[in-house]
Amino acid sequence: MTSIPAEFSLIYQHFRPLAGHGALDLGDDAAVFAPPPGRELVVAADAMVAGVHFLPDDPADLIARKLLRSNLSDLAAMGATPLGYLLTVSVRHDTPDAWFAGFAAGLAADQAEFGLTLLGGDTTSTPGPASLSLTILGTVAPGSALRRTGARPGDGVWVTGTIGDGALGLLAATGRLSDPDGFLARRYRLPEPRVALGQRLAGIAAAAMDVSDGLVQDLGHLCRGGGLAAEIEAARVPLSAAARAAVAAEPALLARCLSGGDDYELLLAVPDARAEALCVAAASCGVQVTRIGAFTTGAPTVSVRGPDGAPMALAAGGWSHFA
Amino acid sequence: MTSIPAEFSLIYQHFRPLAGHGALDLGDDAAVFAPPPGRELVVAADAMVAGVHFLPDDPADLIARKLLRSNLSDLAAMGATPLGYLLTVSVRHDTPDAWFAGFAAGLAADQAEFGLTLLGGDTTSTPGPASLSLTILGTVAPGSALRRTGARPGDGVWVTGTIGDGALGLLAATGRLSDPDGFLARRYRLPEPRVALGQRLAGIAAAAMDVSDGLVQDLGHLCRGGGLAAEIEAARVPLSAAARAAVAAEPALLARCLSGGDDYELLLAVPDARAEALCVAAASCGVQVTRIGAFTTGAPTVSVRGPDGAPMALAAGGWSHFA
Repeated sequence: MTSIPAEFSLIYQHFRPLAGHGALDLGDDAAVFAPPPGRELVVAADAMVAGVHFLPDDPADLIARKLLRSNLSDLAAMGATPLGYLLTVSVRHDTPDAWFAGFAAGLAADQAEFGLTLLGGDTTSTPGPASLSLTILGTVAPGSALRRTGARPGDGVWVTGTIGDGALGLLAATGRLSDPDGFLARRYRLPEPRVALGQRLAGIAAAAMDVSDGLVQDLGHLCRGGGLAAEIEAARVPLSAAARAAVAAEPALLARCLSGGDDYELLLAVPDARAEALCVAAASCGVQVTRIGAFTTGAPTVSVRGPDGAPMALAAGGWSHFA
Repeated sequence: MTSIPAEFSLIYQHFRPLAGHGALDLGDDAAVFAPPPGRELVVAADAMVAGVHFLPDDPADLIARKLLRSNLSDLAAMGATPLGYLLTVSVRHDTPDAWFAGFAAGLAADQAEFGLTLLGGDTTSTPGPASLSLTILGTVAPGSALRRTGARPGDGVWVTGTIGDGALGLLAATGRLSDPDGFLARRYRLPEPRVALGQRLAGIAAAAMDVSDGLVQDLGHLCRGGGLAAEIEAARVPLSAAARAAVAAEPALLARCLSGGDDYELLLAVPDARAEALCVAAASCGVQVTRIGAFTTGAPTVSVRGPDGAPMALAAGGWSHFA
């Protein structure tokens, strides 16, 4: 009765080294910490399931990093500075130790890159697919959080980075699309949350969110949030060289780039008077930003003008888990 | 492209009414709130999987309440006041609307009872068993959080409520144990976190945790936390009338009461000089407390004296998810 159950050995061995101040070495019922004085707290949670959000055979370190990064992308969209996270991991009881080691190594790499620590969590078994959940905590100066509401008619619609790599990357990772140098598959497995840029957007972006369920669907959220319409031009949507090559070979893939998920880029409403400030902030972070259209008065609708100048009909509005 | 995907309809319909101040109506990437001034934050996360932590056919409202209450029990063990929670729900894509309605109704009932609100979360599909995760936030006065470390030789080992109902309740709920009035099954499905009492234990309990993985295993954590041994008497462990009847009919069930999980009672180290203060605090909360043994010097070991006075060997040290 003095032995430590395997569950706790796992936690001690792999997760305790990730624990930050306040986590009490993951040895208590909860973490305790003093919130940074003079800051508001920002909290978000995302779940990922094997076979739904990642491929069951994806390397464990990349699964962990995608989970953490999808949450970091939510902080970026609020303009928040990362503080810490809690993690629940439900995996099969015979999951090898090496999987946990890889998973923890991925977290360690991104903790160092993005400046946050593990605060707590839970590790349980499941007879089903691996099911992961992460709650992230960050901070903002009071009143400065970026919101989905706030876009005004005339504001430009801007995106960071390139769009569609995640959706095409899923095709590539599952052998349905050529991906000679693995760029697209890597973008699917390892998104680049725009955390540094997000923290510089207070006073620049009128509204912000991250693109995780597809550009057009997510832009619809900004439209509903501001009570206005948006019109974008497909030809202006920034595509990576790999995505451009894929679309050149199969033009129907353009629609997938615009409506697929897993981009984890920022989608912004920016008044034209602040466009230069946006470009300066983005350049200082090494992030590309592109104006792809504008918000207009009207019922919340997203119109997409195709490469031929005609309205483009998209088969699906984006990713949804429930029919 | 203006329709709201089903996933968001679910969230709007069922979860938005649960959202508290700062949750931004669950319509943003994250919640934003000012932490209560002059308080430390306490955060914990627990996961539950259908077939592992609850029965797949359990009523949805009770599944939700057990999930929330298992986390509230962690706050109770830290002496914290509930503030809010984030929730991720992964269920089959054809989960009926009524299930979500019941789930939300259970949360609403416990939000009112325990004084906290929903801050955010994520709803996704899974092809496997329902997989739920909840992160809870609470607050304590600075430096007053109860810890697992701090027990001293001579401190009494105390528990709240009754022990073993959860483990026997699982047997009852699965038709393996008679449970004429359904008391045991209900205790399995609806634990009673000792939140009010927990908040009164600063200055009384030298160490605290909640009993979730089995009394003996969890007492081992307090022993390791304090670097000392503990000896308890099985005859002093408080059993409910239903559990006493079950043990009288089948004495081997006593060991299951001591080593089974799902109690969600508090396990405390209390110096005898503060025993009266403990009893007064417990009485004011309507909670039974029982001294079941004492901490002693020695290597971290839990000794159990059986009803016959002889050392009692328990087959399993408690619940673990990994062999």
